Amino acid sequence: MDYPLLPWKVALIDDEDDVISISEMVLKRVLVDSRPLMFLKANSAEEAKVLFEQHADIALALVDVVMEDDHAGLDLVKWIRESKKNTTTRLVLRTGQPGEAPEEDVIRDYDINDYKNKTELNSTRLKTTIYAAIRSYRDIIEVKQGHKGLEDVVSATTRVLQASNSEAFCVQVLKELKALLGQAPISFYLHYQLVNALGNREQILLSYDGDRYDIDTGLEREIFPGEIREKVNQALTTKRNVIADGLFCKFTQLSESSETVVSVTLTAPVSELTQRLLNVMLTKISIIFENLTSREDIERTQQELMCILGEAIEKRSKETGSHVRRVSLICEFLGQRSGLDEHFVQLIKYATPMHDIGKIAIPESILHKPGKLDEQEWEVMKTHAQVGFDLLYNSKRALPQVGARIALYHHEKWDGSGYPAGLKGEDIPIEGRIMAIADVIDALAARRSYKEPWPAERILALLKEERGRHFDPQLCDLAIEHFDSIMALRAIYPDDEE
Amino acid sequence: MDYPLLPWKVALIDDEDDVISISEMVLKRVLVDSRPLMFLKANSAEEAKVLFEQHADIALALVDVVMEDDHAGLDLVKWIRESKKNTTTRLVLRTGQPGEAPEEDVIRDYDINDYKNKTELNSTRLKTTIYAAIRSYRDIIEVKQGHKGLEDVVSATTRVLQASNSEAFCVQVLKELKALLGQAPISFYLHYQLVNALGNREQILLSYDGDRYDIDTGLEREIFPGEIREKVNQALTTKRNVIADGLFCKFTQLSESSETVVSVTLTAPVSELTQRLLNVMLTKISIIFENLTSREDIERTQQELMCILGEAIEKRSKETGSHVRRVSLICEFLGQRSGLDEHFVQLIKYATPMHDIGKIAIPESILHKPGKLDEQEWEVMKTHAQVGFDLLYNSKRALPQVGARIALYHHEKWDGSGYPAGLKGEDIPIEGRIMAIADVIDALAARRSYKEPWPAERILALLKEERGRHFDPQLCDLAIEHFDSIMALRAIYPDDEE
Repeated sequence: MDYPLLPWKVALIDDEDDVISISEMVLKRVLVDSRPLMFLKANSAEEAKVLFEQHADIALALVDVVMEDDHAGLDLVKWIRESKKNTTTRLVLRTGQPGEAPEEDVIRDYDINDYKNKTELNSTRLKTTIYAAIRSYRDIIEVKQGHKGLEDVVSATTRVLQASNSEAFCVQVLKELKALLGQAPISFYLHYQLVNALGNREQILLSYDGDRYDIDTGLEREIFPGEIREKVNQALTTKRNVIADGLFCKFTQLSESSETVVSVTLTAPVSELTQRLLNVMLTKISIIFENLTSREDIERTQQELMCILGEAIEKRSKETGSHVRRVSLICEFLGQRSGLDEHFVQLIKYATPMHDIGKIAIPESILHKPGKLDEQEWEVMKTHAQVGFDLLYNSKRALPQVGARIALYHHEKWDGSGYPAGLKGEDIPIEGRIMAIADVIDALAARRSYKEPWPAERILALLKEERGRHFDPQLCDLAIEHFDSIMALRAIYPDDEE
Repeated sequence: MDYPLLPWKVALIDDEDDVISISEMVLKRVLVDSRPLMFLKANSAEEAKVLFEQHADIALALVDVVMEDDHAGLDLVKWIRESKKNTTTRLVLRTGQPGEAPEEDVIRDYDINDYKNKTELNSTRLKTTIYAAIRSYRDIIEVKQGHKGLEDVVSATTRVLQASNSEAFCVQVLKELKALLGQAPISFYLHYQLVNALGNREQILLSYDGDRYDIDTGLEREIFPGEIREKVNQALTTKRNVIADGLFCKFTQLSESSETVVSVTLTAPVSELTQRLLNVMLTKISIIFENLTSREDIERTQQELMCILGEAIEKRSKETGSHVRRVSLICEFLGQRSGLDEHFVQLIKYATPMHDIGKIAIPESILHKPGKLDEQEWEVMKTHAQVGFDLLYNSKRALPQVGARIALYHHEKWDGSGYPAGLKGEDIPIEGRIMAIADVIDALAARRSYKEPWPAERILALLKEERGRHFDPQLCDLAIEHFDSIMALRAIYPDDEE
């Protein structure tokens, strides 16, 4: 370690200036564990209190008993221990009149650490007292620092545990690492790998330096710098931590089939205590990441399955393949711009692929009829909203519930001319209104067997025309205002033929 | 607190018996913080080492300098601090010949806490020394105990974090609480509530006493005893911890919309330190539970959606409603009995509802044909296996991958007479073989429009006949052996008309 060694603070509290100056003279060259002393002086208990208010790290106070009054020193001790709740500073009483404060009574009744008779306190004895007291202080402080550090790690991991996705996780981890290490700029690299239930190797790489967040979830890209990769591989091979110049790589075996290496770059050496705490923190972080990623994996799987099944249903009605994925993104976008709660927006996003699930019950004769449907056929066609609702509404969970409402309401119109219920305005749940406009925008912009993609101006014209008729005016305004962004979202999932 | 107060251990180390017995006489009635002293005696450094080997909790040692040789006491000090790495015990040197071990040199060079000249050490001075030293020891030990406790809580929460479901979570939590409190039997109650994105109140209650695990996830049952419920409600109303006789209820506000009360019954009072640690631990446990339950919620949602969609597809082919749910359970059962990896079994369980997803592409003219299919129609019908595979295989995730294989292989037969590929024996992936037998067993046991449920004997007879023909012989044996259990699983999801 290359830290400059801070002095030990020693408070000299005595109403006689001579006592203070002689003490200072005797002690000025004393080093305890190579650290010098620094003297804080007070001529009364009142002045001493000011010192204790200003300095939280006084190692030792030599306290005269008789100052303002016969027991000013004793009262000061009580104040330090009881009012200030300072149990760390070592307190040594010095008295010139032992009779007034009998040694045995005082040391029993007051929480002091030593009691000295001034007449006996020659220079050697004074130094001995100082050594003894400062060593006790050092031992207490050392344990306390470790404890404080561990408490900090505990609350740091609590905050990391609350991150809801990988990026938020990285941001929080880097913040906590900076606080723990007292260093910046630092970077953070996570290598996670597992062998899944199918025997396939999966891997997630994360990197974050405070500015740039990068992730690779599929053995596709190497996002670590060469020298980091080398050390990480070494940790993976040896299944041990690798501590190199400016880098700390923590290996954690999470289970039989999964392991991580979490690495932190360091800009300066760290103390042994900090290394120990870093070790604890990175282990925790690894476990938290595995939990988070397994949740994210289930969420993504769910989303993909919804899309696959939604697409299968679309295909049956001969609609284009990526429609459901695009509508899902457009709904998320409009939901967010409408200021809806983010959890609710995510439910809408995940539920939209099921909006036409009721079409599964519509006979092909109607679904695939080339011409216009007659009135009776149209009545059958319209049942898909209710059928979809009935299928999904059985589940009490939030996602199918939202799906049920989207299925039921996505053909309602703002002016009340829609189906199945002919609801008007805000009587139509917001998720139904969002789905209605997203569905139409994407269908118009796509090529279908019976039509070419509409150009932007024509779609915009229609949106303006249907504002307050088919569509919620506010959503319509949002869609018009952000039309380019919506088209850009569409481009993420092009149809094969587009 | 009602603990009997343990004595402070004081080691008296001196080669003169008189010194030891006088010290003992002077000190025997001394109490430090109401705790008596207990004396450990040694006449040499060697004997003293034995004491230090036997007692890890010596508060203070009074050490004579000259014993076996001129510096036996000094060597002992070095051994205690450096070899034994004991930095906690307070060490006070006593010397009869100050000249041989000059006070200032000794206190500077050895990590001792005080240095006394025997001639000056009268009874008052000895008591003062004892008070001072034991108080230092007390302060250090107090911080160390807190630190040790916190370290224990950190590793306890790490283990809890690895629980994969609510029951495993409860078992682990109770184990950790018992260890922290040093008490048993204790019980553990968790009340979790949130307002979800739809504005609905959700609630999970958990209770576990080491024997009985109970859970209610739906505002349906009260599983807490009356007196616990009362205190938990008080905690929820006041949003504060409730600490009552024999009960500790910890309230945690997890987010704007979610909160928990975690309660522990106590059989004895706990120290202030333990209360503080309990507080930290229960906060962590609350957050871990919320993470766990949100993951479980997504998993259950996924499972329900798979079943809803699988059922929708079944309905189209006019099969009975609960078939997919029953088959899912039977597959899980057979997978587990076959000794497959539990993760893999769960993938099979969740993927089976999609086995017939390819039927979505089969025209109604074939799907609903009342009579037997002609050869050409049968060829179309058989394509549903490949179509299902194609739909699901696009996703790289484990669940759709398993679903794709089940869709593709569930009509293969052990003897190679199945479709689409006519694979034989173990060339058919195990998930396909499991699905094949589960599908047939459930179909035979169910009522269909064209047939009555088969009686058990008839199904068993068919299984025996098709062993090694249609079905994997080992799976067939398992199904026959556990036939009653399989029928019991079927009963969980009866068809409406059954």
